[in-house]
Amino acid sequence: MEKTLAEIAQAVNGAVLGNPDQMISGAAPFDDASDKDITFVAAPKFLKTMDSCKAGAMIVPEGVSRPGANLVVVKNPLIAFTKVLELLYPFMPQKPGIHPTAVVGERFVCGRNVSIGPFTAIADGVCLGDHVEIHPHVVIERNVVIGDHVLIHPHVTILERCRIGSRVIIHAGTVIGSDGFGFAPDGERWIKIPHKGIVQIDDDVEIGANNAIDRGTLGRTWIRKGVKTDNLVHIAHNVTVGENSVFAAQAGVAGSATLGRHTTVAGQAGITGHLKLGDNVVIGPQAGVTRAVPDNTIVSGSPEMPHKTWLRAMSIIPRLPEIKKQILELAKKVNRLEQNKDKPEA
Amino acid sequence: MEKTLAEIAQAVNGAVLGNPDQMISGAAPFDDASDKDITFVAAPKFLKTMDSCKAGAMIVPEGVSRPGANLVVVKNPLIAFTKVLELLYPFMPQKPGIHPTAVVGERFVCGRNVSIGPFTAIADGVCLGDHVEIHPHVVIERNVVIGDHVLIHPHVTILERCRIGSRVIIHAGTVIGSDGFGFAPDGERWIKIPHKGIVQIDDDVEIGANNAIDRGTLGRTWIRKGVKTDNLVHIAHNVTVGENSVFAAQAGVAGSATLGRHTTVAGQAGITGHLKLGDNVVIGPQAGVTRAVPDNTIVSGSPEMPHKTWLRAMSIIPRLPEIKKQILELAKKVNRLEQNKDKPEA
Amino acid sequence: MEKTLAEIAQAVNGAVLGNPDQMISGAAPFDDASDKDITFVAAPKFLKTMDSCKAGAMIVPEGVSRPGANLVVVKNPLIAFTKVLELLYPFMPQKPGIHPTAVVGERFVCGRNVSIGPFTAIADGVCLGDHVEIHPHVVIERNVVIGDHVLIHPHVTILERCRIGSRVIIHAGTVIGSDGFGFAPDGERWIKIPHKGIVQIDDDVEIGANNAIDRGTLGRTWIRKGVKTDNLVHIAHNVTVGENSVFAAQAGVAGSATLGRHTTVAGQAGITGHLKLGDNVVIGPQAGVTRAVPDNTIVSGSPEMPHKTWLRAMSIIPRLPEIKKQILELAKKVNRLEQNKDKPEA
Repeated sequence: MEKTLAEIAQAVNGAVLGNPDQMISGAAPFDDASDKDITFVAAPKFLKTMDSCKAGAMIVPEGVSRPGANLVVVKNPLIAFTKVLELLYPFMPQKPGIHPTAVVGERFVCGRNVSIGPFTAIADGVCLGDHVEIHPHVVIERNVVIGDHVLIHPHVTILERCRIGSRVIIHAGTVIGSDGFGFAPDGERWIKIPHKGIVQIDDDVEIGANNAIDRGTLGRTWIRKGVKTDNLVHIAHNVTVGENSVFAAQAGVAGSATLGRHTTVAGQAGITGHLKLGDNVVIGPQAGVTRAVPDNTIVSGSPEMPHKTWLRAMSIIPRLPEIKKQILELAKKVNRLEQNKDKPEA
Repeated sequence: MEKTLAEIAQAVNGAVLGNPDQMISGAAPFDDASDKDITFVAAPKFLKTMDSCKAGAMIVPEGVSRPGANLVVVKNPLIAFTKVLELLYPFMPQKPGIHPTAVVGERFVCGRNVSIGPFTAIADGVCLGDHVEIHPHVVIERNVVIGDHVLIHPHVTILERCRIGSRVIIHAGTVIGSDGFGFAPDGERWIKIPHKGIVQIDDDVEIGANNAIDRGTLGRTWIRKGVKTDNLVHIAHNVTVGENSVFAAQAGVAGSATLGRHTTVAGQAGITGHLKLGDNVVIGPQAGVTRAVPDNTIVSGSPEMPHKTWLRAMSIIPRLPEIKKQILELAKKVNRLEQNKDKPEA
Repeated sequence: MEKTLAEIAQAVNGAVLGNPDQMISGAAPFDDASDKDITFVAAPKFLKTMDSCKAGAMIVPEGVSRPGANLVVVKNPLIAFTKVLELLYPFMPQKPGIHPTAVVGERFVCGRNVSIGPFTAIADGVCLGDHVEIHPHVVIERNVVIGDHVLIHPHVTILERCRIGSRVIIHAGTVIGSDGFGFAPDGERWIKIPHKGIVQIDDDVEIGANNAIDRGTLGRTWIRKGVKTDNLVHIAHNVTVGENSVFAAQAGVAGSATLGRHTTVAGQAGITGHLKLGDNVVIGPQAGVTRAVPDNTIVSGSPEMPHKTWLRAMSIIPRLPEIKKQILELAKKVNRLEQNKDKPEA
């Protein structure tokens, strides 16, 4: 969708420096942009290379100017760029209405402007808000409640009684509300503990593809407002994830752990069950967290330790063979010194 | 579903101490229970805090009494509690029968009291036992055989010729019988090795959400009786998992490994291919098992080592920088001693 | 399907030693083969045990003979065996044509000899090549383009505008083209960066079950010719995977990483974003790669190091407690030596 630079600047609340009538038809990374593209200057380091950039226009932070270039000056170039992406490549909604192949149960409560794709299976007692878009092959089980402006991608399963807030996005293949992994030992056998709780997902959450989020044994597994998860993430029964936390791909949290606000869990990291983590905690990639973590702490390693300690310790691991050799040599020298000691002096 | 304490005690083979007519309408964790809830005392440590518990009734182990409280005395409170959960929150089966949208192939053998949900695709030659409940959007490929009292959640795929026992539960999004990851090198290219074996899942197995269990190259991948897996678990071609083994989330086993009875694989752990593990082996979280493990062994770390060794070794990792410094200081001291040695005595 | 040894030899371009009329009805591993089975000798070590093998025939490398046995002599026994598997257990295609339950959008371009299974949902503007086989419950979104001889297993999702080459296999439950995990921080909140790029999968690629491959933010995520992935693999936005690379199960690559030709990523390994890896790189199991890796390098560990260094370092980890003790003892000895030094000589 082609726009003038003036139209783009207006959409992002920015000011044009240069030609407001410049036509822009695409967006591109800084190094790949052509003269029909707009790009953005994310960090001061890019300012040095602005002259080599071939973009038709650039979104820049306040205070930047460049005679002869077409600039849009804004407070936060990355956030402005996300709005420009939506402007140039608008989201293409599904056709509104319920596709004739969809199966909808009894006591269905359906908001305004809802779109339900082919082969969607909605069980009894489901309640959808306004502007909900459900893509093909979604399964929504009994008595699920979903808010407004929710987008659910194909092959998502939402199991009975789970509650989804507003402005939530759930990517393809994800399972919300599977039974938690709870068994009572009976000799060597395992007796299933029935899982009768739910998953509650609050507003503005985005869940990646092929996630699995288990329901509480009793009570809820709770994904609070603004949480974002990447692909293949596992969240166990009765976990609470604090507001605006993020999980990179293949991370996992075991049962009944409580994460604070604005936690960052890097890829393939794991968190042991029943732990309590503070606010603004950062967990490094592949870390294994086994103890409570206080607010504003960065931990790495498995088992975890303060990130700076980990960096120093990891720099030594490849040198362990050399260190072992040093110790052997030291031991020899000390032995020699001890033996000499016992000898009469020359 | 409301019950009297007497009804509950009867269901779990327990004895009431207190008021058998007490009405119970819910179950709750020890700390959250209200006066209409029943809870349970899992461990002796909770006995001390029984006075602060607000539950309407408690399931307690034999030998416990508390004047004025309503107790159900049983041998194993946790197992009794699982039964109470089923009593108070009974499983709600799907409507029996084959949903009109389901597609069923030729030579279909269907047991009694089977329920098949919307959009289920059952290929030719499939055989289902009695009391099988298949949720919406399940795909069952050619010549699959499934036993009695099996529950299959939405979006599960069971590929051709796989065999599922009785009392098996498979959670949403799981794939049973995908091709194993086997390729023959031909220069830099990889030639696919056709996978013609099956997956065999024995009785009383529960498979978590979004698992992937590959078929054997030839022969079978074999999940033996009573095995339980959590979410996002990977089991490769020709693996055998011994009876009553459990896999926590995001664990994986490479091709042709053999696990003994009652193995415990913790979260995000991995097991190398072609290994043989003994019975009652415990594998720690994020462990990487690269060698055979004898019976009754706990291993941790990547590569794995005895768990106690690992605990001691891991306690040293954060202190490596300090240890390195100690060695440097020792070396200096030894050098000084050596130099003094060579000097004539004062 | 029963074949004579002569027929088998012809199919694999091999020479029969022994009885060309020997009937073969199955294939089996070396140790399990019966007198109706053919097996293969993968490595010279098996030649010693050929006499104990009960197979009706063996595929052997050039130069091997064994009087009285039925042999098929070929250059590469494993590759010949893959062909024999296809001969004895031929792939059973779905019925050709579009299943009446499938939903197909407008402007559908469909090649010759295409098979589309039940409940497949194909959106507008999709283009399929010849001999494409789509199993039940596949979702193909707007304007996806798929080449010839492609096999797509159940419950796969291919999202809008993604491009799939020829001779590609995608296993069940996999998601191609989910949004990348990109968010702009706005205080503690995260603003979604729209993902407008695609996934491009080139010819001869095989993707395992329950993978998630994200689309580019802009531009493409690019899986080049001949790549193979195992189950539960994550590939993030704007990653490029070089030709003939392989990913074992549960491995993951973060955004904008570039992998060279013929990379081997072992199970549960992770690769940090924005890295550039050379050709013929091997990444060990559970490794965490945090820096660029040059061509022809094997790395292991988290963070990664040269594989040989890692092997030596890891052999020391279990001995750290002992090493710490040695250092303490050395320190004591050195202290004693220093104290003795200061004493007047006896």
